[in-house]
Amino acid sequence: MAKPWATFGVDLHLAPTGPGLRRGLTDALREAVRTGRLAPGTLLPSSRALAADLGIARNTVADAYADLVAEGWLTARQGSGTRVADHAVPRPPARAAGPHRSPGRLPHDLIPGTPDLASFPRAAWLKATRRALNSAPNEALGYGDPRGRPELRTALAAYLARVRGVRTDPERVVVCSGFADGLRLLAEVLHSRGARTLAVEPYGLDVHRDIVERAGLRTAPLPYDDLGTSPPGAGPASPGGTTRDADDAHAVLLNPAHQFPLGGVLRPERRAAVVDWARRTGGLILEDDYDGEFRYDRQPVGALQDLDPDYVVYLGTASKSLAPGLRLGWMVLPPSLLTDVVDQGGGRSVGVLEQLTLAEFLTSGAYDRHVRAARLRYRRRRDALVEALASRAPDVRVTGIAAGLHAVLRLPPGTEESVVRAAAWQGLALHGLSRFRHPRAEVPPLDALVVGYATPPDHAWTGALEALCRALP
Amino acid sequence: MAKPWATFGVDLHLAPTGPGLRRGLTDALREAVRTGRLAPGTLLPSSRALAADLGIARNTVADAYADLVAEGWLTARQGSGTRVADHAVPRPPARAAGPHRSPGRLPHDLIPGTPDLASFPRAAWLKATRRALNSAPNEALGYGDPRGRPELRTALAAYLARVRGVRTDPERVVVCSGFADGLRLLAEVLHSRGARTLAVEPYGLDVHRDIVERAGLRTAPLPYDDLGTSPPGAGPASPGGTTRDADDAHAVLLNPAHQFPLGGVLRPERRAAVVDWARRTGGLILEDDYDGEFRYDRQPVGALQDLDPDYVVYLGTASKSLAPGLRLGWMVLPPSLLTDVVDQGGGRSVGVLEQLTLAEFLTSGAYDRHVRAARLRYRRRRDALVEALASRAPDVRVTGIAAGLHAVLRLPPGTEESVVRAAAWQGLALHGLSRFRHPRAEVPPLDALVVGYATPPDHAWTGALEALCRALP
Repeated sequence: MAKPWATFGVDLHLAPTGPGLRRGLTDALREAVRTGRLAPGTLLPSSRALAADLGIARNTVADAYADLVAEGWLTARQGSGTRVADHAVPRPPARAAGPHRSPGRLPHDLIPGTPDLASFPRAAWLKATRRALNSAPNEALGYGDPRGRPELRTALAAYLARVRGVRTDPERVVVCSGFADGLRLLAEVLHSRGARTLAVEPYGLDVHRDIVERAGLRTAPLPYDDLGTSPPGAGPASPGGTTRDADDAHAVLLNPAHQFPLGGVLRPERRAAVVDWARRTGGLILEDDYDGEFRYDRQPVGALQDLDPDYVVYLGTASKSLAPGLRLGWMVLPPSLLTDVVDQGGGRSVGVLEQLTLAEFLTSGAYDRHVRAARLRYRRRRDALVEALASRAPDVRVTGIAAGLHAVLRLPPGTEESVVRAAAWQGLALHGLSRFRHPRAEVPPLDALVVGYATPPDHAWTGALEALCRALP
Repeated sequence: MAKPWATFGVDLHLAPTGPGLRRGLTDALREAVRTGRLAPGTLLPSSRALAADLGIARNTVADAYADLVAEGWLTARQGSGTRVADHAVPRPPARAAGPHRSPGRLPHDLIPGTPDLASFPRAAWLKATRRALNSAPNEALGYGDPRGRPELRTALAAYLARVRGVRTDPERVVVCSGFADGLRLLAEVLHSRGARTLAVEPYGLDVHRDIVERAGLRTAPLPYDDLGTSPPGAGPASPGGTTRDADDAHAVLLNPAHQFPLGGVLRPERRAAVVDWARRTGGLILEDDYDGEFRYDRQPVGALQDLDPDYVVYLGTASKSLAPGLRLGWMVLPPSLLTDVVDQGGGRSVGVLEQLTLAEFLTSGAYDRHVRAARLRYRRRRDALVEALASRAPDVRVTGIAAGLHAVLRLPPGTEESVVRAAAWQGLALHGLSRFRHPRAEVPPLDALVVGYATPPDHAWTGALEALCRALP
């Protein structure tokens, strides 16, 4: 595991000096520069080459490089690769984007997946906490119903029916600590029932694929076109004419209302086709409705779950509508899955005070008020993005529906990596589309950026947009 | 799966009418009584016989029976078994023990494992929440360090060093949503490293054994005597003279400071022996320090982890010191495990506001104040229990150290089941020791009650103690 490192004489211990590979790699590299083992001006291997040599994900290397550029140990220039800085002395981490940026991050942040945390409704949340604490029965503080508090399950069932068309009663709602927690539980239950393959969309989050694979399932990518993702067995013939792994899947994971990251919506004929597949084969659909409250051009498409609650698990969270740090999520389960998920330990992970606070937040109308305000804020940002690109980067096309917290910016072929690098040089953290691609996806690779326009606080948004425009071709 | 039910003509669908077997069974039985398919006066099979016929845990049946006795559908008389009540009409659930008892519970509750929830410091917790919300940086509300918030890890490292002698820095603390969450993560990591057996004490919680077994490990009971549990390979010869399963274990799970439920303490020579075992074999010790703050006769024994932080994982929670509903726990990990636990998804389950609130609670001294008050309350209860038994049930002996939230009451041989039944008749929920016994434990069975004297609120404690004295032989 050491070829390129031998070149630099870097003593790379990925044994834990901190959590995870990224930190271990960052620490090892920083130490090598600090002690002079990597001399000023040294050209580092490309992130792709180094990742291949170390047998780790390319994103891990790219993130470590970006951290060290931000810290001043390395420099990245478009066209000339990443080098050890000429005067590699430690400097304070960049803090331009706000008073509370964590060290080692770039000053402008358009990484998708996080709402504007500065607009979290602290006062309203505290008020709801006070009410929850004052009215909670003592028994709520004990080990309780593994599905979660009845107050929250009742509030969620009503809210999801009203806003997303979900069909459920509170008995089939299970509170979890976010989508990842719910996905893990479902993958474990599917595995214990004999499932071996979960079909997924060709683009998605690698952390979700990792969770599924740790539970003993493999993920298999489905075909995708303008109508959205095809169900197992129903896409066009695969390029080699062979059977796809996904055709044997027992379950599929979909974002019907707004595909992440591609930004499309699952069209009505495909919605029907995937439910048909589930009924015909006894398959299960996991509906990840991560940003269903945010649509700007029309009423959002209702939950797929409404088509057949016996075959669709609906999953949602407060991570985009409020804040990921709350660790609050929920599942609406078909009756046939409820016992297994609960027996697997489902729902026991979430503190009751947070649950009761969210219930109070929902029933008091504070949740609706916050979502309305956030929807307006993000819609304006998206409009500003589209407008700025039309005038300043006419070669870049915004694709996907007007929804959610991110936009996909299609780039001229072959330019994605250089644009991401140019962005880092502008102090701008963002992700290319390629990092979300399933390793075995059959769709042709696309060059694009996935821009999380909700991520910066209001005061930093204009600067981030400006940096983005400067980085684009 | 239906023999005894056929006798009664009960149509038993354990398919999910609610979460878990217990509820399904309770509902099915209640429905059978309500509709008259189980006639008044019918003698039900013993919980042991029914459990064997259904292939489910005996405790599940016993719990369902107890719920239905409490609801008035069944009656339980000492010596005459459980019968359908003569006038089986629904009556409101018993509520004598407080205004917030959940339906279907017995009025007096001495089930171990829960602190006095009525004494949860709501005002102080709200104050800490307000401070946490006011001072949290925006980035805290995002996806953060998978180990948990640095404020909490720092506060825990200092607290655990001061109070429990744990040796750590904040970098090796991982926040989790309780002991079960931590145990699951550790079991998954151990399994992925090739471990196949976790040695456990001969008495413990079946839910913990279930968690370990779901992760693909088997549990194997260790020998136990007056000095405490022996490490793998070091106990007296097994009765058959054969090798024990536990001798092949890669890890052991122990309660060194206060064995649950037996109530003993791991003596110094055994503490040394188990650490020696770990160093010699590369084994791992999981130290479950669930009630380490509560000792009444002297300073508590410090954490075993202090003997060798490279071989001991220390696990603690706020479930006994504050409330289980908070879902707040922590692990202190050897460096060699940190990366694996984090990569397994460790630490991502706990809401940041709860974490910051606990950090504030610890650093402000509110945690110490609450623990001191709780310690005094529980100590007085334990003293009252010992005194009452000495005068009113001289055949019953209180065993174990003066510590924690529960006491073990040794009963005359052969009487445990009838005493638990008599207790239910007195409206008293409690557990016999046998339900905690590992199915393959080699120690001779003991007749005893495990009395959770911390469980009732103050106003209900005297009534619960009185009911206990009436139920004892």
